[in-house]
Amino acid sequence: MSSHIAVVGAGLVGSGWVIVFARAGRRVRVFDADEAIRSSLPDRVAAQLHDLADAGLIDEPVATVLERIEVCDMLKEAVRGARYVQESVLERLDVKQAISADIGALIDDDTVVGSSTSGIPASAFTENVRRRERFIVAHPVNPPYLAPVVELVPAPWTEAAAIRNASALMAEVGQSPVHVTREIEGFVLNRLQGVLLREAWALYEEGYSSLEDIDKTVRDGLGLRWSFMGPFETIDLNAPGGIADYAVRLGPLYRSVAASRSHESNWDASLIGHVETERREALPADRLAERSRWRDRRLMGLAAHKTTMAANDP
Amino acid sequence: MSSHIAVVGAGLVGSGWVIVFARAGRRVRVFDADEAIRSSLPDRVAAQLHDLADAGLIDEPVATVLERIEVCDMLKEAVRGARYVQESVLERLDVKQAISADIGALIDDDTVVGSSTSGIPASAFTENVRRRERFIVAHPVNPPYLAPVVELVPAPWTEAAAIRNASALMAEVGQSPVHVTREIEGFVLNRLQGVLLREAWALYEEGYSSLEDIDKTVRDGLGLRWSFMGPFETIDLNAPGGIADYAVRLGPLYRSVAASRSHESNWDASLIGHVETERREALPADRLAERSRWRDRRLMGLAAHKTTMAANDP
Repeated sequence: MSSHIAVVGAGLVGSGWVIVFARAGRRVRVFDADEAIRSSLPDRVAAQLHDLADAGLIDEPVATVLERIEVCDMLKEAVRGARYVQESVLERLDVKQAISADIGALIDDDTVVGSSTSGIPASAFTENVRRRERFIVAHPVNPPYLAPVVELVPAPWTEAAAIRNASALMAEVGQSPVHVTREIEGFVLNRLQGVLLREAWALYEEGYSSLEDIDKTVRDGLGLRWSFMGPFETIDLNAPGGIADYAVRLGPLYRSVAASRSHESNWDASLIGHVETERREALPADRLAERSRWRDRRLMGLAAHKTTMAANDP
Repeated sequence: MSSHIAVVGAGLVGSGWVIVFARAGRRVRVFDADEAIRSSLPDRVAAQLHDLADAGLIDEPVATVLERIEVCDMLKEAVRGARYVQESVLERLDVKQAISADIGALIDDDTVVGSSTSGIPASAFTENVRRRERFIVAHPVNPPYLAPVVELVPAPWTEAAAIRNASALMAEVGQSPVHVTREIEGFVLNRLQGVLLREAWALYEEGYSSLEDIDKTVRDGLGLRWSFMGPFETIDLNAPGGIADYAVRLGPLYRSVAASRSHESNWDASLIGHVETERREALPADRLAERSRWRDRRLMGLAAHKTTMAANDP
């Protein structure tokens, strides 16, 4: 069985992936078509690893992690025999098409290839590629070794096993894999970011608030829970009876707010019923209070943490 | 000059405000029309203060903080002579109208009255109130002693000085005041939350992702930066050239995403120019790199913090 990880494209995003895999104990072979980027990689990675060590986020010597990384002068040296290939080349369709064709010609039958693209669906650059059923989007947040989410998105011809294998690997190396079931522009993360930014732009443009005050609203309010719970668990714990209760209390306000921007509403009873059922399977109603106490402990810890960090700011 | 703070309504939200003010060294007089709520307040506040002390978030004895709190049996005992009144009664228009009339009859000329309402504009319950020009909305996130944001929203007849005074007080007691310049449904915080939830509901409803994976996308991705920077500073630091550069790179994707939900776009060049100018005043271009290093230190600290917290979860 193939065992090393290949990283193709060693710029900012690629070097972040190198750290993710090497930190988790994997052997990593890296290729970049640009010789200057290849040769600078070890120093760039070493600097980031030292920062991570200083922050207590790796617990073995930096040299040990570095020893797992091999820079290759040829694509085939990196890709051949790899269990998984993370492609992070320039975000341009023709570049993605060319490298995917090259990678497809080299991979084993059980290899999965994930692209770091944030905006191009895999179907746009893998249609005519050998073993196209093993190609997916694996979209990270930068830097992936600090923000663990990775969106896994299949093309229409991707095998289910390719997503399963990539998801298992990402979980093994400490990332947080999210499954997007089919292609959609912006995937999930940038769609969520996009709608919030759109309303933020509008509020600023219409003079309701300053940029700084909009940032404060998120930084000192909304973003606190979201940074350890996400939006659904947040509202599930924000009403005594859970998410359905929350929808009864706040749904009318949100419907009205949405209408004022000419959106259709999504707060209909049937949808809420489905969501409530799923949430209650994840967290039974008789554990809401206990989970709310957990949330409060997390909120306190986060507040203490932010106070400490702010005191150490320059 | 009047010096104590009055808190009217001593349920979940009101008791949180009592802690905010007493923790900051202010004398607090509390009234609730419900005798059972009044009499249970000291024990509820004491329990929360002990939790805060355990988390290292207060650095004086709990008893010292408790001594600053006086529960009053009459509204007038709490309100008369107060520098500031925080009203947190039931979220119902007729109840807000009645208590505002009662409070207006009792306040000094320099008192400001802030309502904790999350959805009712001050104009709806202060029009016929004595000293209505001193009434505002002061909308917190719960609990306000852990999530410091407070939205300050005037009615059309509110004096500018009332907002200024409330803002200064909130900053003095450690809150994070946000100015909303005029009334708008949902204010800023719930509008931002509403649009993100709306897209999240839609993605779930259309089968693109599970609730848990949408939560993970925010919790392990978007929410990390947002919890200490907010959305605008996040994108300002997410492109080498700042927010305008980011808009050039990502604007087309977001425009296209917005169009797919039949929104009009707000990513036009004129708006971006204004935003860029304001951002560059707050953070000159030659300090972008330095601020990005600050962001990375904060991200690392947050990651270490979350790891520690998760290890202590039950």
